[in-house]
Amino acid sequence: MPMPAHVVLGDGEFLIDEHFGIALNGYKELRLERAQQRFLDVLSRETGIPLWREAIRNRANFVIQTAGPSAQVQGLGENESYHLEISTTAVLLKAANPLGVLRGLQTFLQLVRITPSAFSVRAVTIDDEPRFPWRGLLIDSGHRFVPVSVIKRNLDGMEAVKLNVFHWRFADNQGFHIESKRFPLLQQKGSGGFYYSQDEVREVITYARDRGIRTVPEFDMPCHTTSWFSGYPALASGENPFHSSAIDPTRETTYKFLTGFIGEMAELFPDSYFHAGGDECDSKEWEDNPRIQDFMRTHAIKDGAALQAVFTSRVEKIIAGRKKIMVGWDEVLQPDTPKDVVIQSWRGPASLAQAARDGYRGVLSSGYYVDLNQSAAEHYLVDPLGDDAATLSPDQKARVLGGEATMWTDIVSHENMDNRIWPRTAAIAERLWSPVEVQDVDSMYQRLAIVSLKLDYYGLRHRLITDEMLERMSGEPDPEPLKVLAAVVQPPRIYERQDLRTFTDFTPLNRLDDAVPPESDTAREFGGIAKRIASGEATPNDWQRARQWLVLWRDNDAKLQPLLKRSYLTQDLAPVSENLSRAAEIGLQALDDLEKNRAVNTDVRQRSIDFLKSAAKPQAVLLLMVAPSVELLIEATRTQ
Amino acid sequence: MPMPAHVVLGDGEFLIDEHFGIALNGYKELRLERAQQRFLDVLSRETGIPLWREAIRNRANFVIQTAGPSAQVQGLGENESYHLEISTTAVLLKAANPLGVLRGLQTFLQLVRITPSAFSVRAVTIDDEPRFPWRGLLIDSGHRFVPVSVIKRNLDGMEAVKLNVFHWRFADNQGFHIESKRFPLLQQKGSGGFYYSQDEVREVITYARDRGIRTVPEFDMPCHTTSWFSGYPALASGENPFHSSAIDPTRETTYKFLTGFIGEMAELFPDSYFHAGGDECDSKEWEDNPRIQDFMRTHAIKDGAALQAVFTSRVEKIIAGRKKIMVGWDEVLQPDTPKDVVIQSWRGPASLAQAARDGYRGVLSSGYYVDLNQSAAEHYLVDPLGDDAATLSPDQKARVLGGEATMWTDIVSHENMDNRIWPRTAAIAERLWSPVEVQDVDSMYQRLAIVSLKLDYYGLRHRLITDEMLERMSGEPDPEPLKVLAAVVQPPRIYERQDLRTFTDFTPLNRLDDAVPPESDTAREFGGIAKRIASGEATPNDWQRARQWLVLWRDNDAKLQPLLKRSYLTQDLAPVSENLSRAAEIGLQALDDLEKNRAVNTDVRQRSIDFLKSAAKPQAVLLLMVAPSVELLIEATRTQ
Repeated sequence: MPMPAHVVLGDGEFLIDEHFGIALNGYKELRLERAQQRFLDVLSRETGIPLWREAIRNRANFVIQTAGPSAQVQGLGENESYHLEISTTAVLLKAANPLGVLRGLQTFLQLVRITPSAFSVRAVTIDDEPRFPWRGLLIDSGHRFVPVSVIKRNLDGMEAVKLNVFHWRFADNQGFHIESKRFPLLQQKGSGGFYYSQDEVREVITYARDRGIRTVPEFDMPCHTTSWFSGYPALASGENPFHSSAIDPTRETTYKFLTGFIGEMAELFPDSYFHAGGDECDSKEWEDNPRIQDFMRTHAIKDGAALQAVFTSRVEKIIAGRKKIMVGWDEVLQPDTPKDVVIQSWRGPASLAQAARDGYRGVLSSGYYVDLNQSAAEHYLVDPLGDDAATLSPDQKARVLGGEATMWTDIVSHENMDNRIWPRTAAIAERLWSPVEVQDVDSMYQRLAIVSLKLDYYGLRHRLITDEMLERMSGEPDPEPLKVLAAVVQPPRIYERQDLRTFTDFTPLNRLDDAVPPESDTAREFGGIAKRIASGEATPNDWQRARQWLVLWRDNDAKLQPLLKRSYLTQDLAPVSENLSRAAEIGLQALDDLEKNRAVNTDVRQRSIDFLKSAAKPQAVLLLMVAPSVELLIEATRTQ
Repeated sequence: MPMPAHVVLGDGEFLIDEHFGIALNGYKELRLERAQQRFLDVLSRETGIPLWREAIRNRANFVIQTAGPSAQVQGLGENESYHLEISTTAVLLKAANPLGVLRGLQTFLQLVRITPSAFSVRAVTIDDEPRFPWRGLLIDSGHRFVPVSVIKRNLDGMEAVKLNVFHWRFADNQGFHIESKRFPLLQQKGSGGFYYSQDEVREVITYARDRGIRTVPEFDMPCHTTSWFSGYPALASGENPFHSSAIDPTRETTYKFLTGFIGEMAELFPDSYFHAGGDECDSKEWEDNPRIQDFMRTHAIKDGAALQAVFTSRVEKIIAGRKKIMVGWDEVLQPDTPKDVVIQSWRGPASLAQAARDGYRGVLSSGYYVDLNQSAAEHYLVDPLGDDAATLSPDQKARVLGGEATMWTDIVSHENMDNRIWPRTAAIAERLWSPVEVQDVDSMYQRLAIVSLKLDYYGLRHRLITDEMLERMSGEPDPEPLKVLAAVVQPPRIYERQDLRTFTDFTPLNRLDDAVPPESDTAREFGGIAKRIASGEATPNDWQRARQWLVLWRDNDAKLQPLLKRSYLTQDLAPVSENLSRAAEIGLQALDDLEKNRAVNTDVRQRSIDFLKSAAKPQAVLLLMVAPSVELLIEATRTQ
């Protein structure tokens, strides 16, 4: 995963044992040597065989053939194709440049499995290349600071699933988290002490480049910028800079500042693209400021959007002056926006398609917001060339560069971030890499489970976080009944969060809704079984598993309640646990009725359905994911 | 844990919430600031409340009062005492120097727990100091290279349990894993590319010092030294340096080399103590070399031990010439050994007591070999002043400096090392810190379980390793029945390993005996229940749990067998799983017989006992730990 473009299965398998040997042939550079070492490290972790030392000395049965270099600064649309030929005795990985080698090595690592005789890879010939040239992940270090170690392991994960753009966002109202040497008050006053030094930034850029990943910085402006004003209050539109969130676009001093700041950052980040944000401007601050109103009248600027357009146009020129291409969110697109500006769409495919028709290149993010706790399947079925874009001409389609998963950190900390990003982002990565025909959701979920396991070997913590947080919130080394409940609930989806907490970067994210993965595997599996039972297609094994699960859930509440009372972080879960128990009881009754084809009293049936509907609603900021499936069961029963 | 010396419980509790504030008063240094930051990091992880930023700004309800500095280079026997006063509204931590502050901060972190109202610490006043001044952990980077990241997280664990000596061993026959600038062929030819640069060593020393831990290097000589000879064959005693393991003690060139080498290393490591090894010399190589035999005759050296004494005496002088004190294993103790040499005893307390009587200071390691897979209780009950040492005079007792847990890496890799060291080393740490009266094994196990959980927050991986390795060896994301088996087996104890594999640093350690912890908690708990049932002291809950466990184990084999067949790493576990199932069946029968007070046929009973005795023997290099407990049950039944 992503599924390669062309796969031809062979016979037999290639064994991975102490005789494994690897060599780099053809074009050489240090990045390839480091990639080889990293490959051996992961392969050693996948197998428990310490290959890292001997594999370079052994006779090479795995040969990497690189034709030539890639660009000095990784560019958009560089060749990432590779040819991977695995026979029972040898492996050949051929690529035009190191980028293709990186991609091919990851494919090999994903194919490793254990068999009754050894760790091995099936014989196969693969010719592979990406469908889209821009396959990104945004990490938002603006709302909350994200430590470098967390960034790095997520870059490792990106490499594993062949993503190639790290969109790194540094500031928002909450904080300014990168060092400026020209304007040091930005981080000194705006970061609370947590910011990336320029050395750290360079280190991350190199780390990303080593993995075939471009680093595109974002400095969101003119709004979401309160944190800039702690150090430089003259930039603010509002009278009180600490309560202002918009840059004043009417002062020349603003542009003087931005020329200096963007100049510094354009030098720090070698990538040709520079993201200047531009989203969600509320023009109220501009309307409330008489000086800005005067300016607008004088220059015949009709509203806030037009004022932002003026600002964007100035910023675009500053960026272009540094020989960089601007990227911006939907809002930056205005009638006179230069045609090389890249539009990142949070509004949706229609907006992106319109931009493409108007001659702009674009990147889709709408549908790939991994912070919104949607299912992998939902993300997977969003296509940058789907919906409105399907009607574009080939030239217009070529302007759709790809997409980006977005890890906003409003309600995510660096502690639980991995479990929000992974494994679902692998499904998005497949959408952006693999041929458009690859659409089977069941196959995706099967492969996603394997990838999720493999991502452990890259140091990602997504599979560890839930249990660790459940232990902490219960104070128990193995809070089994809490795990049972956790496996069937989900945090609220999209923007449906019902609680009225306001989230700052000091809000503890240590509750069950923070701990559980965005998608419940158990609920999905149970849902599949319930569907098969309801439609009469269930196997005896389905019936047995449904019953086992329902019994587990029914009996869980009695064990869990005493535990919940002991901790202030779990007390409000009592009704959720009760609901699970009652839903399971209803489910067991429905199974009995179905099995015996017994007619059910209509009133009783309706009361059960009503209860299940209410149980499926958010409670303690959690969704009980199995309630709708139990409803399927009861609806399949016969009424009197 | 370790249990403090003096504890007076107060009333009420101190809450940890967003109002938490901390300040350093009195003597200040950067190490204290870093300690404070580390404390806040762990406290944030323990609670999920992001305290790291605001706690330094808030009004301080946690005040650290440091009287003055500690020594520039941490010395043996420095004051580590502290006074910790926790009321419902404030915390005061007072210490003479930063070392005491470090110890007190760890005590506080261990006291944090979750309650129905908040994370909190009970009001208490603690006055604490260590019983022994030398409380160490040896990590053997000689047999296998141990990455710096693994060393560092184990130093974090050492700090958590107040250990203060990191004994770092760099070379053995298998490899020479540290950079020498004077003799670079040592690492260039002897390390296979895996060695610590001097910069890395300095970084680790600083990291340790920050945690109140001295770093004592060991260069084991004159034996265990094959790896030295790849670069410097003239040092070898044998004709073929690649098959020689002993330094030639008869050549002056040897001492010239050692003067240079020890000089370089004595400069790199600031500690006043320098470990020169000296263990397990086999004099055969010396006997086989005519030139060495000539030398011995000429100088009237009667045997290998005497020749080693000559060598040790020269090495001791070189070390003393660098103003350092030599440490060595038991064997270095000879009639003319200078009195300041410290003896580390792997032979046992008798050897250590004799050394103390002879005027030597000593450190006990026998009984603290954590690589030997003994129980925490066994280690816990070994006392450096126990056995023979109990009869020493107070002056002689004062020469017993403490003890050291030893993590030898013959059959441990950096992957599973954490699970060999932790949590059992915390029990050893308590033995070395706490008053001699602290001896209750049940209390130790209760507290050890809590410490084990807390060590997660220091980044240690001991609680993660088993599941990760089981997933890898089965190829399954959640191999439940394999986990059930894994929970009741243990790797072979002490030197009872029955398999004939020879272990090099390339031997994969990826099997079940590598994955499971050295001590089965489940087996210990079941053992307690079985004992109570057998002695008629069991509660109804005991009976119920015994039955639940036995049913789980009886039914597990049918689920596990298909899984075991799929992987070459698990196929040989089939008979172990069968034995568990059969043992559980016997146990269930015994429970029934006991409950109904039914008389059992003597022959049947004997056959069951015979089976259980054979099932308790190593199989697939594993011990089935519940068999002896089931035997207790059956032996409690009445015969016909």
